[in-house]
Amino acid sequence: MELKFNIGPLDRFQSKGDIGQQEMVPSKRSAVLVDGVVLNGPTTDAKAGEKFVEEACRLIMEQVVSKATDISEKVCEWRPPEQLKQLLDLELRDTGEPHHRLLELCQDVIRYSVKTNHPRFFNQLYAGLDYYSLVARFMTEALNPSVYTYEVSPVFLLVEEAVLKKMIEFIGWKEGDGIFNPGGSVSNMYAMNLARYKYCPDIKEKGLSGLPRLILFTSAECHYSMKKAASFLGIGTENVCFVETDGRGKMMPEELERQIWQARKEGAAPFLVCATSGTTVLGAFDPLDEIAEVCERHGLWLHVDASWGGSALMSRKHRRLLHGIHRADSVAWNPHKMLMAGIQCCALLVKDKSDLLKKCYSAKASYLFQQDKFYDVSYDTGDKSIQCSRRPDAFKFWMTWKALGTVGLEERVNRALALSRYLVEEIKKREGFRLLMEPEYANICFWYIPPSLREMEEGPEFWEKLNLVAPAIKERMMKKGSLMLGYQPHRGKVNFFRQVVISPQVSREDMDFLLDEIDLLGRDM
Amino acid sequence: MELKFNIGPLDRFQSKGDIGQQEMVPSKRSAVLVDGVVLNGPTTDAKAGEKFVEEACRLIMEQVVSKATDISEKVCEWRPPEQLKQLLDLELRDTGEPHHRLLELCQDVIRYSVKTNHPRFFNQLYAGLDYYSLVARFMTEALNPSVYTYEVSPVFLLVEEAVLKKMIEFIGWKEGDGIFNPGGSVSNMYAMNLARYKYCPDIKEKGLSGLPRLILFTSAECHYSMKKAASFLGIGTENVCFVETDGRGKMMPEELERQIWQARKEGAAPFLVCATSGTTVLGAFDPLDEIAEVCERHGLWLHVDASWGGSALMSRKHRRLLHGIHRADSVAWNPHKMLMAGIQCCALLVKDKSDLLKKCYSAKASYLFQQDKFYDVSYDTGDKSIQCSRRPDAFKFWMTWKALGTVGLEERVNRALALSRYLVEEIKKREGFRLLMEPEYANICFWYIPPSLREMEEGPEFWEKLNLVAPAIKERMMKKGSLMLGYQPHRGKVNFFRQVVISPQVSREDMDFLLDEIDLLGRDM
Repeated sequence: MELKFNIGPLDRFQSKGDIGQQEMVPSKRSAVLVDGVVLNGPTTDAKAGEKFVEEACRLIMEQVVSKATDISEKVCEWRPPEQLKQLLDLELRDTGEPHHRLLELCQDVIRYSVKTNHPRFFNQLYAGLDYYSLVARFMTEALNPSVYTYEVSPVFLLVEEAVLKKMIEFIGWKEGDGIFNPGGSVSNMYAMNLARYKYCPDIKEKGLSGLPRLILFTSAECHYSMKKAASFLGIGTENVCFVETDGRGKMMPEELERQIWQARKEGAAPFLVCATSGTTVLGAFDPLDEIAEVCERHGLWLHVDASWGGSALMSRKHRRLLHGIHRADSVAWNPHKMLMAGIQCCALLVKDKSDLLKKCYSAKASYLFQQDKFYDVSYDTGDKSIQCSRRPDAFKFWMTWKALGTVGLEERVNRALALSRYLVEEIKKREGFRLLMEPEYANICFWYIPPSLREMEEGPEFWEKLNLVAPAIKERMMKKGSLMLGYQPHRGKVNFFRQVVISPQVSREDMDFLLDEIDLLGRDM
Repeated sequence: MELKFNIGPLDRFQSKGDIGQQEMVPSKRSAVLVDGVVLNGPTTDAKAGEKFVEEACRLIMEQVVSKATDISEKVCEWRPPEQLKQLLDLELRDTGEPHHRLLELCQDVIRYSVKTNHPRFFNQLYAGLDYYSLVARFMTEALNPSVYTYEVSPVFLLVEEAVLKKMIEFIGWKEGDGIFNPGGSVSNMYAMNLARYKYCPDIKEKGLSGLPRLILFTSAECHYSMKKAASFLGIGTENVCFVETDGRGKMMPEELERQIWQARKEGAAPFLVCATSGTTVLGAFDPLDEIAEVCERHGLWLHVDASWGGSALMSRKHRRLLHGIHRADSVAWNPHKMLMAGIQCCALLVKDKSDLLKKCYSAKASYLFQQDKFYDVSYDTGDKSIQCSRRPDAFKFWMTWKALGTVGLEERVNRALALSRYLVEEIKKREGFRLLMEPEYANICFWYIPPSLREMEEGPEFWEKLNLVAPAIKERMMKKGSLMLGYQPHRGKVNFFRQVVISPQVSREDMDFLLDEIDLLGRDM
């Protein structure tokens, strides 16, 4: 190592002052070189950096935020992967690019990105632009906190506590605990691990080796994260027992009970039932009260995956969909879906108040969770998490809730579901459209039957041909960029569209447009 | 359900036009009521929303971004939890708040949040403000993408591919695969699960029940996420074998080999060795080449947790710290730490190119990963993940890399390590400061010995008293808000400070200030 002093005075970027009782730092100091690096003063040009951020913010406001509600804009500017690679300058080089070039890159990124804010983006279980959560997200990106200890994240830890408390109230528990996670899938994993810990705390230290085969029960319509979780947690996907559903996609409690008995007979150890409130494809709600009965009879942890449907709890009119949820031991609920908090905002809520989350997850890192701190370390909630650094996702939802109030959130849910009803009635009226089933929630599943198939007998050939229609229409709509909605085959049903209504920027006109446009795109088929 | 038509014309928020070949939508349409909800036109006032976002952006620029480099600002405005709850209006109510009130709330949030961007925030393994990644973060928050399928996230999937490719190049692999995760802890879990899958693919379906006891080996100085991972994955914390380290905190390869033999003798099944490049507290680098030899001899997966130290790969001068890393099977590397990409930006990189990630993690959800799409579905990378929705974290790093080039990133690393050297030499010169050990990296661990202890014999009483010094100084510095750095006890050593140097906004003057300030805060002790 090379240490040189007194190379000469350096006054660029010198420190301007100091704080507290300290004296002012002398404005000129000798340069110090270590290993050939000048160590005086910061090396970044803050003024230029700030100007760049300002220019980029202007671009974001103009190109993304202001255009979000403009239906004359395209939802997407489709390019196939190989072509998009040519259009974007993706390569990372030895030397950097100047600010004006970076702003051009930003423009390209915006141009070719799908506009998930657009009123005609219906492709996923999230959509639209919430101005309040967006502000919260800008704030946290600028503040760049990590939510593990109170000393580093005082505000965001208290905000998380306040939001969890309120969500717990809406579930109908008197008290509880919880944590925000990077995704509903992760929340479901947390719940599975908690249930396992409750079943046998020794597993934390000893692992599963030598134990009887643990088994869990979930709806045949559940989210695929249940399989991912069982595999990740060492339980194994074969030990996820999929309980049959009725014609509307709801788990059948008598089937559940039959399978629990069956598993016991085979020597497996049931430890968890996962019910779904709002299934991914059909938007079905499992009968929680009856499932809770079964769980109580068998002493099983009841987890409710309400990632999608949980938001109905905000509506006095629709919360009956989750009747019985207060009997659950844990609930996953993602405000980033129907409540538009921005990807991601996902809570796992736990009824237990014996500090189960902490007992199950803690690893007591001494460099982070020192017990000799000068404040109440029960506010250092990071050891409840499988993550170390963790984003302040609760804050996004808090800001929207503050802005709209409970009443405003309720109105959003009511409107989305009223729009869904409107669409259902329109589908029934229109030739060539056929509902898969009456929906319970905001997933409207339907086929478009093009003219050439309308007179055909509904035999194997009909279904085979109909299976090709949705993908072909999807291709056309993507290339045109006029709207985006998803399709899928599902449990013996050939490809159908799944329309999801969320955003308050969506109107009855968009519903009409959706049907007109699908007909326009498919009427020559 | 109630369906009413023709209530009357409604012209507020009417749609302004349409796209593609469609006709203009008539500008006035009859209002439609469903369940008491008017469905015509959007219900959000976009103009007011945009104005709110603009005002908030101005606040963020003034209060956060512009002040980030200003050392006359406080690092934190400390309030104890109960007092802060009083100061903040956290409660979520039935009715919403007007925009001016929301902006006041934003100001409070900023005021009481810790300024992790501040040049004198040294408390964690991340710090400072990178203007480029910040712009990328603002962009992705506005675009609100989820990175699972090419159709929804075309740009961000290609960006992730480009960044992973480049990171793989810096590790020294010819090819490879990878994925960005919400935290290094999660990356370590991925690696553990991959190693387990490679060891026995059946575990994905069958689980661990009935299998021999799996065991893994890691340094006694490793990150606490290894324990969390073993517990979460059903392996059990007792099956994490902590290998002893030398005086500098580096894993001893001969000890590793001895423990592998020992475990085999006891009937356990070794499947993974995790080496650490840049330990959390001491910043130690395990000898990768020698550990790789051991792994090859025993046919064990070698994972390198380079979450913290991986960034040294960017520096031609310092990459020797990770000599041998190309022999690893997987590497965790967090550009959000020394390369300042913003919380979180964490890659897991995998040498295997047989699609191991996908085989290990896929659940093949038919609603998301349809195989009859019109484009090359190998770009739908979401099934490699344990998450469903996933943030575009690679983009933040891509933007910084674009702006600075490899050379600029290298300079950052070199400067941080040169500043560390400077601090070490200053500590050696100053009375009352004592290094724990010569650092290898940017963690400078030291004690401050206050005047009253300087003449004391170094017996039990001395260490007992010294143990109280760092927490007491920390309390004073937090209350004053002049700087933040962490302390911890560690493996028999009483509480010492850990100073971490990262940001290019930090200078030699800040290093001097750090030592002056600690002395000022502690000299009456």
